Amino acid sequence: MHAEILAFGTEILMGEIVDTNSSYMARRLPSLGIETRFISIVGDKMEYLVNALKRGVERSDIIFVTGGLGPTEDDLTREAISEVFGEKMEIDQELLRNLEDFFRARGGTGTMPESNRKQATRIPSVTILSNPRGTAPGWWAEKQNKIIVAMPGVPNELERMWEFEVTPRLRERSRGNVILARTIKTFGLSESAAGDRVKHLFGKDNPYLGIYARQDGIHFRIIVQGKTSTEAEEILRPVEKEINEALGESVWGVDNETMEERLGNLLLDRHLSLAVMESCTGGLLASSITDVPGSSTYFYGGIIAYVNDAKSAYGVDPQIILDHGAVSAEVAQAMANAARETLNADIGIGITGIAGEFAVNGIEPGTVFISTSSMARTECAKSLFPPNRPLVKRRAVTQALLQAYSLVQGQVPID
Amino acid sequence: MHAEILAFGTEILMGEIVDTNSSYMARRLPSLGIETRFISIVGDKMEYLVNALKRGVERSDIIFVTGGLGPTEDDLTREAISEVFGEKMEIDQELLRNLEDFFRARGGTGTMPESNRKQATRIPSVTILSNPRGTAPGWWAEKQNKIIVAMPGVPNELERMWEFEVTPRLRERSRGNVILARTIKTFGLSESAAGDRVKHLFGKDNPYLGIYARQDGIHFRIIVQGKTSTEAEEILRPVEKEINEALGESVWGVDNETMEERLGNLLLDRHLSLAVMESCTGGLLASSITDVPGSSTYFYGGIIAYVNDAKSAYGVDPQIILDHGAVSAEVAQAMANAARETLNADIGIGITGIAGEFAVNGIEPGTVFISTSSMARTECAKSLFPPNRPLVKRRAVTQALLQAYSLVQGQVPID
Repeated sequence: MHAEILAFGTEILMGEIVDTNSSYMARRLPSLGIETRFISIVGDKMEYLVNALKRGVERSDIIFVTGGLGPTEDDLTREAISEVFGEKMEIDQELLRNLEDFFRARGGTGTMPESNRKQATRIPSVTILSNPRGTAPGWWAEKQNKIIVAMPGVPNELERMWEFEVTPRLRERSRGNVILARTIKTFGLSESAAGDRVKHLFGKDNPYLGIYARQDGIHFRIIVQGKTSTEAEEILRPVEKEINEALGESVWGVDNETMEERLGNLLLDRHLSLAVMESCTGGLLASSITDVPGSSTYFYGGIIAYVNDAKSAYGVDPQIILDHGAVSAEVAQAMANAARETLNADIGIGITGIAGEFAVNGIEPGTVFISTSSMARTECAKSLFPPNRPLVKRRAVTQALLQAYSLVQGQVPID
Repeated sequence: MHAEILAFGTEILMGEIVDTNSSYMARRLPSLGIETRFISIVGDKMEYLVNALKRGVERSDIIFVTGGLGPTEDDLTREAISEVFGEKMEIDQELLRNLEDFFRARGGTGTMPESNRKQATRIPSVTILSNPRGTAPGWWAEKQNKIIVAMPGVPNELERMWEFEVTPRLRERSRGNVILARTIKTFGLSESAAGDRVKHLFGKDNPYLGIYARQDGIHFRIIVQGKTSTEAEEILRPVEKEINEALGESVWGVDNETMEERLGNLLLDRHLSLAVMESCTGGLLASSITDVPGSSTYFYGGIIAYVNDAKSAYGVDPQIILDHGAVSAEVAQAMANAARETLNADIGIGITGIAGEFAVNGIEPGTVFISTSSMARTECAKSLFPPNRPLVKRRAVTQALLQAYSLVQGQVPID
């Protein structure tokens, strides 16, 4: 089945709110065997709504509509569907009673405002989808093999309706089509360099392969379809294997895994602790590490040594800064060691570099030295990132987590 | 002018990423006098892209496209525009040289992968939009009064291009109708409490008033239209004044201002320096402060004291922790003072609390003590945030920046 999603609402077109409903549904449709072909956001005007629905009925099997089910005059979803299906809206007495009960239960005056009456209407092609979280019932409108599902725009009303009313009906209809997706995450290669290694895998429909540049590296995404889970997995497996082999040590994770989680799990596993000293990343490394629940077990703390005095105050020999400059491999190593030693941690990370857009003392902006250290050894790598403050911070953090991971992996368990 | 926005990318249709670029542009178009009529998300297939562009050219004056400008085979935006305009893509020698320079500057092998060549192409109707943050130049394609603007999908590349390349060109063209928008940012009130104070201002078309709950508080957004800037401003001014009066001391900023910029500017102004010691925010406070360009002038550094030993190692008297517990006003104050004194800064901030979802030693999750200190005085406030890790971190940081701002404001300039 081919689907499209229509989000009705001028406030989305004004950039007032970000439409998260569409991605909520889009994320869930593949596993129901339904392919989303289009997502469109349409302003609250009758003409636009009707045109969008008509085009939808022509090109898609099923159309998911959010928004426009409220009681006000610019809520026009019901009217638009009725026009497209050529049917007349009428009050449904049972719906009306439910709605009146809803208002009575809410307290206040207990009477339903007149404007809410239109939420109790339906057309002959419609099956009502209940909405225990609000006043707007959903519509499942079906005619001549075309389906329009209209749901409220309030996310928690939509999500409840999606799960309990829409998903079961979709399951009944999607026979034997399963879509699987897998994301493979790499770091250290450019998009083109990474893509070139598996060039021959692109351009197919099933398995479909996409490639995306993300802040934590280049991601590959494989999407496959099969009549059964087994069939889909059989299509997925060889492609996944081929990508893993072609990208080798650049691959660091799959699906929703983050680098900070992965390092955290490894540290827990090895009973090791971590401390950091950061300069140009300004706390983003520590903040990323502490985004992981339970990180207090292995993360002892960190120092943000933004000025040279701060570096010295926390254990970096001022002579090293004088001899080599604040942005140098020697200082990064001294920072990693100082963090580890001051806080009695097993692993230390030190980062020094230039996050701003201008060269400092002849050192190019975007230059970052990252050092990782343990009792047994200290390593350091120099990176050059595009000179943009948030980007340098984020990329340096990813690189640091990756280096720490590889240091710990080479580390013998100490218990 | 009527605009539509097309976001190209199968990953958005799969719900893999939420399209934030469209709302970034949609939020900025009204003030340029441009009305957004449609936003559509389209999968990476040539046929879909061409159809979407053709429909766009028929119904809109200007089409903003994001994504599909990368070097890989499923990056088809250039090809689709060329087909719609009936023109042939050719290598632009200057673009090619720029691109080769970009790769040389990046280091590595220094040679540009063959696949990147297509990023150096253009058609006769295209003016190139430069992209100093990446390899994909933008296209401003204009033919027979129709404009297609193609920009990269990576948000920070798009945002730079939007601001420096696209906005000035749009300003030249938008004559007559002026749309103005103003965001007023408040903190410390709930959405309903804030909304109730200016209830009578909602529900109008011009001025239009929206209210939104954001991580740094409740935002009001006023949108007005006028034939001239003066007319628009005359409609805007009284509403803005009324909101400012009704919300009083809860208002902390307007439009794009962030709390960290605002504090930074005040510190610069007063020639004061800042140091921090954080526990539950885990570095997010320091990272937010250092997101501001030039922050190294006033921010000396910080300590992330994630475990009690770390607090003591950096100047918090262990006896205070023993007497009052790690999550207490006394420890927050000791942290603020220790940060300030160890780093010789004028102002110190200390944060201790519970970011996780479980109570610790009988203290409710979401409890955070935030202290600000100067030579002259130390203050502390207790907050209770919804117990959700990223939310507690973000809200505590906002609260800390706000408290520091108010402390510094009360501070006599020292020079």
